[in-house]
Amino acid sequence: MSRIAYFGPAGTFTEQAARRLAAGRELVPMETIPAALTAVRKGEAEMACVPVENSVEGPVTATLDGLAEDSPLVAVAEALLPVHFTVLTRPDVDTIRTVASHPHALAQVRNWLERNLPEATAVAASSTAAAAVAVCDGEYDAAVTAPVAAQTYPLRVLAEGVADVPDARTRFLLLSPPGPQPEPTGADRTSIVASTANRTGALAELLTELASRGINLTRLDARPIKGNFGFYRFFLDFEGHVAEARVGDALAALKRRCDVRFLGSHPRADGVRATVGATATDSDFADATRWVQAVRNGEQA
Amino acid sequence: MSRIAYFGPAGTFTEQAARRLAAGRELVPMETIPAALTAVRKGEAEMACVPVENSVEGPVTATLDGLAEDSPLVAVAEALLPVHFTVLTRPDVDTIRTVASHPHALAQVRNWLERNLPEATAVAASSTAAAAVAVCDGEYDAAVTAPVAAQTYPLRVLAEGVADVPDARTRFLLLSPPGPQPEPTGADRTSIVASTANRTGALAELLTELASRGINLTRLDARPIKGNFGFYRFFLDFEGHVAEARVGDALAALKRRCDVRFLGSHPRADGVRATVGATATDSDFADATRWVQAVRNGEQA
Repeated sequence: MSRIAYFGPAGTFTEQAARRLAAGRELVPMETIPAALTAVRKGEAEMACVPVENSVEGPVTATLDGLAEDSPLVAVAEALLPVHFTVLTRPDVDTIRTVASHPHALAQVRNWLERNLPEATAVAASSTAAAAVAVCDGEYDAAVTAPVAAQTYPLRVLAEGVADVPDARTRFLLLSPPGPQPEPTGADRTSIVASTANRTGALAELLTELASRGINLTRLDARPIKGNFGFYRFFLDFEGHVAEARVGDALAALKRRCDVRFLGSHPRADGVRATVGATATDSDFADATRWVQAVRNGEQA
Repeated sequence: MSRIAYFGPAGTFTEQAARRLAAGRELVPMETIPAALTAVRKGEAEMACVPVENSVEGPVTATLDGLAEDSPLVAVAEALLPVHFTVLTRPDVDTIRTVASHPHALAQVRNWLERNLPEATAVAASSTAAAAVAVCDGEYDAAVTAPVAAQTYPLRVLAEGVADVPDARTRFLLLSPPGPQPEPTGADRTSIVASTANRTGALAELLTELASRGINLTRLDARPIKGNFGFYRFFLDFEGHVAEARVGDALAALKRRCDVRFLGSHPRADGVRATVGATATDSDFADATRWVQAVRNGEQA
């Protein structure tokens, strides 16, 4: 049975995403995002599941940096999970004096804690699941966790659907070494990272290569390259699949201009179908290529 | 004496930035970033000091959203501070069993705590300064704080320059209602927010307006507009001052294309001088405008 490494420990949002994306596989928790990616690069796991962006906090920089460096990995699937926390306590606890969780989770439920557990001290744990373990051990009274933790630990659910921002979502990727892509569905996302010198117009030129081929951008993150001041990496997500003519043509144009790494084409979790610019369908590209060939052959003009 | 609202409480990195940007003014701590901006909008403070971006964590979304909404505010100055924490303890403490700080600060010193205080429990406080107060009160043994807190509280410095990422920096803005801009220095930054429909090529067109006028982009953040699905705001920082011809010309071109809000022109904290595209100096623009006028007058062709 194939192994799927994920950013653990067990009982976190990433485990929930991994269960959805790789049902029935052996899930192996890793301590950090880089460790999950390394497991795939070393062949110790077939694929890795990691978070890539949160609608409130923005991109997960450890994942972006990890995909841009070392040997290439590509996203073959994605999952979108609402960031709703569950608050767990031991059945024997009457008064909640301490609430533990990961610092980022505590930051996302701060208003809820102030309203509902104003007397409790918030304690930082290494993960939402580690907080649940500490509550099981009697170390703290309550834990702010992913919903999946309620199935993992023998704790009582004090509250569900807890979130200061009600429509927060996190997107997760299932990553594998380069290989055959998932089939195009018409509702696909393609991701790349393009590295270019800090030069006037560099980004405008890259985006124009996409726009002129009728490709709609869905996300852009600019990250400085560590230890290489003045150089930026642009993480671009756009509609379409590398198997489609307009996407392949655009990737070739970008490759001429700068350093490009392909990060995968896969179906969108939200199922939104691509808008294809007029004159940018596969048959438009095929017709135009045939015409150029005919011109070269002296058959048309 | 004029009042400067800042994202408090006292003893935080933002107070350090406010001291640098508004030396000698009365500094008034506000509990949240929106509250600091509101104080200026209501005329209760002359200006506000807030963080805008961190080199590790990315943009401060509360500041970006707060600048895009409600009545306009413009940045008149900026400060760049290294994110190095100081660990404070009471003089009488022998063994450190608890370390308190803001959840984001705890996340940024996690490796340091694991190496240096592996036995201590990390406790989340509402701010780095609140953690210092709690240590003064004997509630916890140590606090992870901004360096300025060592001058504010009667505590002993256990460690300085603490940071898992050694070159992390935060940029802060000093914001005022619209009015006269600071004088151009040749090393200026101009910031805008442009809102546009999610349409193929929209961003490429905006960036091309800047690039074609020889304007170098320094930052781009794309943020979805809350409650208006499919619409994005682009926060753009670029070199140059609105008083310069190429910047004014580009802003007018963007204004024709989309909803633009000016967020200020001010000297860069790092002093990096603008690269002005060849053929994009003020005299290039003046010569070209004179020529068009002469053509219209029938004097030249």
